[in-house]
Amino acid sequence: METVVPFDAVEPNTRLASVLDATERRAFAEAMLSDVLDTLRAVGHQPSVVTTAAVDWIERQTVDDRPLTTAVNAILADREPDHDQPVAVVMADLPLVTPATLDRLTGAERATRPADVTIAPGLGGGTNALVVRQPAFRVDYHGASCRDHERIARETGGSVRTVDSRRLATDVDEPADLAEVLLHTTNTAAREWLVDAGFRLDTTDGRVTVER
Amino acid sequence: METVVPFDAVEPNTRLASVLDATERRAFAEAMLSDVLDTLRAVGHQPSVVTTAAVDWIERQTVDDRPLTTAVNAILADREPDHDQPVAVVMADLPLVTPATLDRLTGAERATRPADVTIAPGLGGGTNALVVRQPAFRVDYHGASCRDHERIARETGGSVRTVDSRRLATDVDEPADLAEVLLHTTNTAAREWLVDAGFRLDTTDGRVTVER
Repeated sequence: METVVPFDAVEPNTRLASVLDATERRAFAEAMLSDVLDTLRAVGHQPSVVTTAAVDWIERQTVDDRPLTTAVNAILADREPDHDQPVAVVMADLPLVTPATLDRLTGAERATRPADVTIAPGLGGGTNALVVRQPAFRVDYHGASCRDHERIARETGGSVRTVDSRRLATDVDEPADLAEVLLHTTNTAAREWLVDAGFRLDTTDGRVTVER
Repeated sequence: METVVPFDAVEPNTRLASVLDATERRAFAEAMLSDVLDTLRAVGHQPSVVTTAAVDWIERQTVDDRPLTTAVNAILADREPDHDQPVAVVMADLPLVTPATLDRLTGAERATRPADVTIAPGLGGGTNALVVRQPAFRVDYHGASCRDHERIARETGGSVRTVDSRRLATDVDEPADLAEVLLHTTNTAAREWLVDAGFRLDTTDGRVTVER
């Protein structure tokens, strides 16, 4: 499956500024991106990165510095995805995603015909992953986009399936999310980066957090 | 399936104190509890509430004011759950849970033999739901309990399955979680309570939050 991974190479993970400086945020963002690309390739996806600035180590990339919604819609308009040639859009800050999670996203493990649009909501109402099998569908990433994408899919005549996955819901963009990487991943570049940077779990009270 | 729902009737949802006063927190906690009980009954569970103080409207309840871990372990020791008589433990602050989510938890939708212990991690490393089919397993809810429960299950000779569910992971105990109730539930008592109390979604930036 063709899978688009949008990446902000200019100012990634600004909501981690309280715990990581700008250089660290960029390095951590690249670590998460490499995890997502590895996992996609492990289940036979052909990922390409749509990045706001060139990143030297990425094999397949397109530089597009327009807003996320514009850049993704340009790809959808060009590809005209359908059930024979679906296009997935998977965010770059999802290091918890595993091959099994991706199979749930794409419907690979289901016997039934996939929906025209599959949506994996993020925490806070965003859309962390999409599989589009309908040429008229367009994205709108502003605000509660998981709701908007469901509406847009139906307005353009499509069926919708929502994937109930904690791993797909956990976009790592706030300090509390770092604990999820340490708790729920083992051999990821993101985890290794955090450990090297001195982060460890703090289990002293309530929700587990990180300390450095 | 026999399902235990622990409930703190004395001081529920203290981490919502910045947005709800004590009376409101209790009312909202009861609304969430009633949602969980309704959903459990809808898929044929027999829920009983283990509560720290009596709640007049609950049909099947046991009052036990000991700490959560002690109270749940007393039940497990008494029941000696196995594959014929499993015991589930489902937290009371999970209003996003649907019948389909519960079927994933119990393995009702799977053809294979269920694991001895099934764990649904919460955000922040907690354990929001368990299905125990092994008499020797005991809980320990302190700290990163989802990890501890996996370890305890293996130490007591059991197989483990982890359920990757955003709905089971979303325990509603912090202000940001209120947005998840408004985003992802429709006819729940929890949603109705929040709407009546004047909460609505705030989609102005980043993760969707609530305003009142």
